[in-house]
Formats: sequence, structure tokens, C-alpha cells
Amino acid sequence: MPTSKASATWEGNLATGRGTMKPDHAADIAFSRATRFEGAQGSNPEEVVGAALAGCFSMALSLGLEQAGMTPQSIRTSATVHLEKMADGFGVPRIELVTEVRASGGDDAKFAAVAAQTKKGCPISKLLAAAEITLDAKLVR
Amino acid sequence: MPTSKASATWEGNLATGRGTMKPDHAADIAFSRATRFEGAQGSNPEEVVGAALAGCFSMALSLGLEQAGMTPQSIRTSATVHLEKMADGFGVPRIELVTEVRASGGDDAKFAAVAAQTKKGCPISKLLAAAEITLDAKLVR
Repeated sequence: MPTSKASATWEGNLATGRGTMKPDHAADIAFSRATRFEGAQGSNPEEVVGAALAGCFSMALSLGLEQAGMTPQSIRTSATVHLEKMADGFGVPRIELVTEVRASGGDDAKFAAVAAQTKKGCPISKLLAAAEITLDAKLVR
Repeated sequence: MPTSKASATWEGNLATGRGTMKPDHAADIAFSRATRFEGAQGSNPEEVVGAALAGCFSMALSLGLEQAGMTPQSIRTSATVHLEKMADGFGVPRIELVTEVRASGGDDAKFAAVAAQTKKGCPISKLLAAAEITLDAKLVR
């Protein structure tokens, strides 16, 4: 299997410094204390993790639906990532996934079963097992 | 605490389909089966997760060094993310962090202790607890 690479920088101290995150084949993503902890406009590691989970889940769901005899057309998934002060410092106790899928074949019960299995089994879901991941999955005909 | 948001799409089936991952405040990041599993040029969820971890670690390290009486100038961190076929399907058993830090004050032993503690305690490290995370940390004067 190919390995994947990424990098990040931080310049200065926490309060006045600034950072970048860079997936090897994507642009720099800037962040700072303000965009992470103070609601300022901008990115942060939590939304980057959410993008990875939503992407992995969506791709895996297309495979799962095919394997269940359905034909996926389009999958749209959002992730809401909660950063909270916990007993051992800041952490991410919960991520909410919401997905809306256009697919033919199958039925609602089969769709729900595949979606639940995908949430459990996709590689990034398993990697983020320390958080509770909830899923709201909707099939649109 | 503010929550963070992201989204993703997948169009079509696994073999010929294509996806995007989008941290709410960053550009779309395209991916496909080929860029994830076949080494084709392009991004994938693993490098996006690696960017989030490297970013979180770098930011947290700046705080940790300050708290230990050191003055961080710049932190450069890379992440190598291993996607492998495991007993329960594909998963990420291991991520390697390599960091190079310019900072004044303190000494090598203090630096090593802070770096190890940061690897253990940063929010994204804790979230990815299902993987073994290794760290090679170097202090440059």
C-alpha cells in the first residue's frame, strides 16, 4: 500500500503565532489560536479531521451500496467536530456525520444497514475510535 | 467551544467515481480510488488526517515549550500515514511524526520531555489513539 504524507508548521508562540497544515497534494491550510479556539473565521485541525472522515465515509459508502446491489449516484456528507475541555485537557469526544445519498435499487432498510456498517468500518472511522461518531443517513430517490 | 465543520462528496461508484473533501474554511481537496489505493498523484483521507495531526501537534508543542520556559521560533512537522490491509479491512495502524524545532532556552532533555508529552496529549493525538504514533523530535539551535 502507498503511504501518505502531510506536513505542518507553527511560527512563534501560541498566542501570537500562526500555523499551516498541508496534505501533500493539497494547498496550505492556515490556522491560528483564534481560528481554533475563539471562533475567528478560518480553519483548524478539527475541521481538517472532519473532512478526512467525511471523505473516507462517503467513498466507503459507495462501495458498500454497490456490494449490497444498489447503484450509488451521489453522496453528500457533512461532519461536525466537537472540541471540548475534558478531564485530561482539550479533546474531541464527538463527531456528527450527516449524509444524503442518491442511489437506485435496494430499499431503506438495506441502505440503513450499509450506512451503519460503513460508519463502523471505514478506515478513518476506526482510526478515530476515541470519539463517539453519530450518523444521520438519508436515502433520496 | 466553537464546533468545526467539514464536508465531502462522492459521485458514482468506487471504481470510476471521484470525491472531494472540504474543511469549511479551506478549498476542495479532490481524491479518487487511484489517489488513495494505487499511488496516483493526488490527495486522500490519510494525508488529510496527517495534516490535522501535524498541525495540532505543532501548535501544542509551541505551548508546551513556552510552559517549560523555552521560546519557540519555528516548528516543522511531517506526518507519514500508513494505510494497510488489516484483519478487519483497511485501517491505519501507524503514523510517524518527525518534527524539527527552533527554540531558545531549555535543554535537550527538557525539549524531549515536552515533545513526548505533546504527542500524547494534543487533542488530535488523543482522537487517533487507535493508531501507534511515533515521534522523532529534533531541537535545532
